[in-house]
Amino acid sequence: MRVIGIDPGLRNLGWGVIDVAGSRLSHVANGICHSDGGDGDLAARLLSLHSQLTEVLRLWHPEAAAVEHTFVNKDAVATLKLGQARGIALLVPAQFGLAVGEYAPNAVKKTVVGVGHAAKVQVDHMVKLHLPGVKVAGPDAADALAVAICHAHHVQSSGRLAAALRAAE
Amino acid sequence: MRVIGIDPGLRNLGWGVIDVAGSRLSHVANGICHSDGGDGDLAARLLSLHSQLTEVLRLWHPEAAAVEHTFVNKDAVATLKLGQARGIALLVPAQFGLAVGEYAPNAVKKTVVGVGHAAKVQVDHMVKLHLPGVKVAGPDAADALAVAICHAHHVQSSGRLAAALRAAE
Repeated sequence: MRVIGIDPGLRNLGWGVIDVAGSRLSHVANGICHSDGGDGDLAARLLSLHSQLTEVLRLWHPEAAAVEHTFVNKDAVATLKLGQARGIALLVPAQFGLAVGEYAPNAVKKTVVGVGHAAKVQVDHMVKLHLPGVKVAGPDAADALAVAICHAHHVQSSGRLAAALRAAE
Repeated sequence: MRVIGIDPGLRNLGWGVIDVAGSRLSHVANGICHSDGGDGDLAARLLSLHSQLTEVLRLWHPEAAAVEHTFVNKDAVATLKLGQARGIALLVPAQFGLAVGEYAPNAVKKTVVGVGHAAKVQVDHMVKLHLPGVKVAGPDAADALAVAICHAHHVQSSGRLAAALRAAE
């Protein structure tokens, strides 16, 4: 199964694609969609993110998607901006017919590092351990790969659970 | 010139289309795009809003668009949800190649009613005065028509300004 993880942001939207075969993970590609410009260009920036992310899905054909459930901070203006970028991050995989999983940052860290409040460098380190030889485009791409790894683990766990339930029937 | 105004929301996204000929405004159409369902279906809800709004633009061919600059309240979770719906509201007209104006609710009220802190019923009343015979699909559609009227006035004012500057040269 091929999984895309997305770390939404208006300026930098990270993405990472991995292949999952049983418990074996392998890196496929990762990168960052950029949108620059002032607040006046918001619609144009969202359009640019939408085009870039659409191109990523066209190129890499993921079969499942997961988006980080954005940390809601106290700055309402920043939260609104993030929400707008997150709308695009959720829309694009849905337009490709994919189910989109959502994970809180702490759930991602707990899956990838083992603790919910891990530092960013630990996440980065564990992403590299999970995906040997990976070259990461930047912190947002590392976070996106972590989301993809988290989704792969959850899909596997629920698969094992379903298999166990079938065996118990 | 044909203008679409949009009042973004995740459950109810209002839209209103008007024609502008000089200082004369006339109603074309208005309605509400709905998306129901729990938080787990967020990507599917955004996809549904995107499809519905795309259909509206396909049907009515607006040449300009304006979106209400969402009121940022103190509830960060609600702000994030609104942001996600707003991302779609900004994206769709941009996908049709339209420039998208943004107006704060107070600016809309000031243009349509004359004061920045007008009550909702006043806005509704003035929308009906501006667009005789209009049947409004609901409060969100009335707000969307108000945004369209506001945009029409601003475009006219800047047009008159440009003409005055040309005449003064």
